[in-house]
Formats: sequence, C-alpha cells, structure tokens
Amino acid sequence: MKVYLDNGATTRVDDEVLKEMLPFFTEHYGNASSMHTIGQNAKEALEESREKIADSIGANPNEIIFTSGGTESNNFAIKGVALAKGAGHIITTKIEHDCVLNACKWLEKRGFDVTYLNVDNEGFVDIEQLKKSIRKDTILVSVIHGNNEIGTIQDIDAIGKICKENKIYFHTDACQSYTKVPITVENIDLMTINSHKIHGPKGVGALFIKKGTRLDPLFHGGGHEFKKRSGTENVSGIVGFAKAVEIGLKTDYSKVAELRDNMIEKVSKEIDNVILTGAKEGSKRLPNNVNFIFKFIEGEGILMYMDGHGVSVSTGSACSSNSLEPSHVMIACGFKHELAHGSIRFTLSKYTNKEEIDYTIEKLKETVKKLRKMSPLTR
Amino acid sequence: MKVYLDNGATTRVDDEVLKEMLPFFTEHYGNASSMHTIGQNAKEALEESREKIADSIGANPNEIIFTSGGTESNNFAIKGVALAKGAGHIITTKIEHDCVLNACKWLEKRGFDVTYLNVDNEGFVDIEQLKKSIRKDTILVSVIHGNNEIGTIQDIDAIGKICKENKIYFHTDACQSYTKVPITVENIDLMTINSHKIHGPKGVGALFIKKGTRLDPLFHGGGHEFKKRSGTENVSGIVGFAKAVEIGLKTDYSKVAELRDNMIEKVSKEIDNVILTGAKEGSKRLPNNVNFIFKFIEGEGILMYMDGHGVSVSTGSACSSNSLEPSHVMIACGFKHELAHGSIRFTLSKYTNKEEIDYTIEKLKETVKKLRKMSPLTR
Repeated sequence: MKVYLDNGATTRVDDEVLKEMLPFFTEHYGNASSMHTIGQNAKEALEESREKIADSIGANPNEIIFTSGGTESNNFAIKGVALAKGAGHIITTKIEHDCVLNACKWLEKRGFDVTYLNVDNEGFVDIEQLKKSIRKDTILVSVIHGNNEIGTIQDIDAIGKICKENKIYFHTDACQSYTKVPITVENIDLMTINSHKIHGPKGVGALFIKKGTRLDPLFHGGGHEFKKRSGTENVSGIVGFAKAVEIGLKTDYSKVAELRDNMIEKVSKEIDNVILTGAKEGSKRLPNNVNFIFKFIEGEGILMYMDGHGVSVSTGSACSSNSLEPSHVMIACGFKHELAHGSIRFTLSKYTNKEEIDYTIEKLKETVKKLRKMSPLTR
Repeated sequence: MKVYLDNGATTRVDDEVLKEMLPFFTEHYGNASSMHTIGQNAKEALEESREKIADSIGANPNEIIFTSGGTESNNFAIKGVALAKGAGHIITTKIEHDCVLNACKWLEKRGFDVTYLNVDNEGFVDIEQLKKSIRKDTILVSVIHGNNEIGTIQDIDAIGKICKENKIYFHTDACQSYTKVPITVENIDLMTINSHKIHGPKGVGALFIKKGTRLDPLFHGGGHEFKKRSGTENVSGIVGFAKAVEIGLKTDYSKVAELRDNMIEKVSKEIDNVILTGAKEGSKRLPNNVNFIFKFIEGEGILMYMDGHGVSVSTGSACSSNSLEPSHVMIACGFKHELAHGSIRFTLSKYTNKEEIDYTIEKLKETVKKLRKMSPLTR
C-alpha cells in the first residue's frame, strides 16, 4: 500500500488541473506580452486566471501579482515593503516559514529592527505582546496564517485589525491555509498564496497586494504584472493554479478534517507517550494537519521506517529537512530539543481515505514499538 | 496559413519535452527536499537535469542554480553581486534587456555607479570604451550575448578575458543564444539561461554561478539550490528545461540560419526602402533572427496586418511592447525615432520551413505596399 501523507510539503497535481494546463504548452503557447493573436490568447487566459483567484479572496484582479511560488511571494512582500520604506521596524513571529525568517534576518543585517513574537504551547501568537511591540517606526507585521508544521491557525482578522488601527502593513503567509480555510482580505494588505500545496503545479504562486500598498519589486524588467513583477508570465502554470483554486474551493475539507480527527484520536489512544503538537481545537487547526511527538525516538527514524512501509510523512518541514537542527517551530512552542526531534507530521489531502489512515496507524504502532526497543532513552 | 515567427518572445514547447514533464505532475510529484522515496525520486530527476545543463556549458553541476526564468536570473546576478559587495561601479551596455537595465537603474538609486556602453550601428559593443570604463571599484560587467531584438552576438570570450585580467566579475545574458550558439564558461562568472526560448516550458531558467563567485540570494528561505536560491524546486519545469537543452544541442541551427539568410536576401531585394538592423555577418547574428526597418511606416501597423494574415511577428521586444517608446536598442544603434518605430522582428525556429518564409514575404510585400499608400510620410 502506498500512502502519501506529506501534502504539507507538496501535492499531487489534480488530473483536471493538468488537463487545463496542457493546451498552453503546445497550442496556446504565446507570450502574454505579444500583441499578435497567439499572444493575446495567452493574455486572455492569464487575465481569466487572475480574476478567478481575485474572486476567491474578495480582491480586485489588479491586486493579484503572479510569482514563482510562496518563497518568492514572502520575500517580495517583506523585502519589498522594507526596501520601499528604507528603514524601520518589523514584527513577525518565531514560527514563520524559513523564507519569512531569513528575509527578516537579511533585513536585520541591513539596519532594520525585527521583533520575533512568542507563541504559546499550541503555537498561538501572543496578541498582547504584538500590541506592546508596536513602535512608531513599525512598518510591517508578518504572521503566518496556518502553520506549515503544527497546523495552528492564527486569528489573522484580529491581527489585521490591530495593524489597521496602527496604520501598519499586515502580511500573512497563507500557503497552507488557502482554499482550505475561508479567507477574506478586508484587514490584510499583503497575502502569499501558492499553487503546489493545493494540487496545482510547482513554480507558481501569487502575492495579493492591496491597492495603494507600496513595495519595491524584487524583479525589475519589462514591467509585467502591473509593473510589480517583471518576467514572462508562466501561463500554463498560472492557468493550472487558477484551476486548482477553483477545484479547491469546491472541495469539502470538513471530510478531510474528520479523517484528521479520527487519526488524532486513534494515535493518542493506541500509542503511549505521544504529544499532539499545535492547536487542540479542530477549527483552529489546518483540516489536513496531524503532528505528534513520539517520545524517546527520533523523527527521522520513524520517517525512514514508514517510508519502507510505503507511507510518506515528514519531520520538521520539508524545506529544512537538510538541516540537523530541531524545528524552530517546536522549540518556539516550548518543546525541548529531544522532544522536538521526535516529531512527525502527517498531512492529508482530499485523496486520503480511511483505509490509508488505518494502515498508517497500524504501521506507525509497529514502527514506534520497534524504534523504542532500540532506543537508549527507553532503557 | 499560420506562421509563428515570434520565437524570440517565446516558443512552442517541444512534444518530447512535454512528454518528459508529464509524469512529474501526477506520478513523481514529490518535493525534492522530502526525505522519503517520493521526494528522493524528485530529487534524482532534479539532479540529473542539473547535470545535463551543466554539461552543456562545461560547468559543474553545483554551479547551476535553477530559477523562475531569465528575468529572475538577471536580477539575481546583478543585484546579487552588487548587494554582496555593498558599493561599487557596474559596466553594462545600452542594448541590454530591460531586466538588466532596470536592475542597474534600481542599483543607481541605491548609490551604485553604472556605465552604459555604446554600440555601433550593427549593435556591437565598443570594446575600447569597455577597457577605458574600468575603474578600481568596478565590481561587475554585464553584457548580453545574443541581442533579443537585433540578434547581434557579442564576443563574450574577449570581454570575459578583459574582465578576468582586471579581476571583475563578468555576467552575460545568454537567453537568446543558449543551445543555438556554442558557449563555454571559461571566461564567464555568471550566465543567465532560460527554458521558454528553446522549446521548454515557461517559468524556468537558471543562473550559472562559477565556483567562488560571491552574491547575495534574491530569495532567502529553506536554503535550496546550494543555499543560493530558496523555494521548492519546480521539478516538472526543470525536467522539461533539461530535455529542451538536450534536444536543442542536437538541433542543426545552420538550417535555421539558411532560412534566415534566405529571408534577409529576399526582403532586401524585393521590398524597397528597408534597412537590415543588427549584425550583417551571419556568424555574428543569432541563427533565427531577422530584423528590418521598413521606412515611412509603423511597426505596429505591420504587426497587426501580418497577424490578420496569420503571421505572428513582433516590434521591439515583447517585453516592452506595452510601451509607446521606441526600442532603446534601435536608438542605441543610431536609428532615429521614426526609423526605430518602423522595425519588425521575425524570429524563426526549428519548426519554420521555406513555405512559411515565402508566404510571410508575400504577405509582407502586400502589407508594406498598403501601409505606405496610407502613410503621410510617403506623400
């Protein structure tokens, strides 16, 4: 049995999405900037895609800027605002994706001040600390919506309102939550969204930029994307992204959440010495995220054994899996190094079914038992 | 008849390329950073693609950094070197692509000095001016290899040697020449290459970065691509790019050059008051580029009429076609505004055949005749 439970890392492209993309490789292959019919056909598809995505979050089409993905969008939002302002203070959290954290660290070297907010044991941002951290020179607040590791969903509406009252730009990274959790951009100035986490192709994403928000482009050039992001548009990818959004909005994620809750319940009951990380309340957790710490053993060992059983899971986020450091998210949630190292993330998708979850739990029980037998920590 | 002669703007994806890409959407869809089998399969495909591309220019695989395309690679190279150095002088030319020019202009606002070299009537860079422009604080020279509008190929080996002698980084934008003209990177530190100009998918490119070359990343994050360019790799796109390179290297571009020469000869002979722009010598011109100025009329008019006949051509570069300004490349070559406005670019591909060229010339003759009749300039 093959069970893919690493949909937080990336997803299988939906057959319907691929079907929609195909004509744009070999038939409607024009450059959307070309004035002839072949170019204008590509342009039309591009603008239809932009409208679909804008509609999905209650934005105007000219507020959607296509990029190459989440990392670009996050870098663009944060560096873009900072470099346009020239100086100032940024507030973010200790549980952001590496691309937000490392963009902030780069800005710190260039004279910007950054405050990294604490989170509680479930990964919720300390709103009081946020309020207290605001300074006269604060230019930007960036808080991840649904956390990629532990699945905790922040109250971005409340955070957005605080930013609005203080006339500070608010950016949120919604790569994991987009189409899975309802989002409107009323109190958001900048939002990162992404295709390959929602059964669209890799290499495509977007940044929502509220009208009037000033930021420096990351890519200068021919002035594509309303002069905000130059470069020939990846039309096939964008068309696929829009189709993935359309399908995503129609998908019933409450069914995925049911499987999630089922899995959480069974693992908690059937395996001892486990800790569920992230939000306990289902409505405040990504519908597809399960993340447990298995005491006394290493996540990597579990991952490898489970892979041997045909089950794909992850430890930490895929993006930092090359690192030996424990997950900064786990550390921020107050877990000690040895516990942080024992965490495994299971991320479900619309394709996941009950049989797969049952099989996964069965193999997980075997694996944990075997590894604990070998572990010096259990002796 | 449908004739696509805008391959300088973008190309049709080769059927073989698409075939190679397909399994990576729905079957081998893993994240190349994931440690499980599905991830490692993606990683393997990624590294095989990197090797193919490295081999094509005599580079090492770890000198190839995948990006989202030419605009990103050019921005990355130029801003990357500049921001890593912190200050200094850059030399480029007046005929670069907008993304190089606008990256340089952005750096000028941030305190960097930039010299824009002149070119002669055929678009060749003034090498003596280059030598004289070098200062003690010159950090980077960036010269386009094959010009996107007029097709002129610069002697990048000679320019690279001058840079090497003076210990200055040399970057070249090889988007239009790559796989069509032999390139080795012996005297090059940074080179931009790109997929969608060579029958690969849009949204993928690479930057060759010679070992030891120091530059700041444009995208910070999870540390992908040897910590030089973070972000989940676009595996399907990269696999397609590598296949396009493989096919491109096997393609006999001397046949395309024959068609080009045939077209240049016929247009020169059969239509009066035309000027061939760019290099006259075939070996110093992109094998697929034909660019003429048609006196007394506007390029846009020709483009629209030709489009009506099913022939796709361009005026200026597609990337700046939204602008009413005459092409900066034509102006740099010494053509006055009214002449610059009358230029049309025909860019051939391996799919172009003699019948298409004959049909194009026939329709071009009609179009030019018709437009000149209406033109106030011919009265």
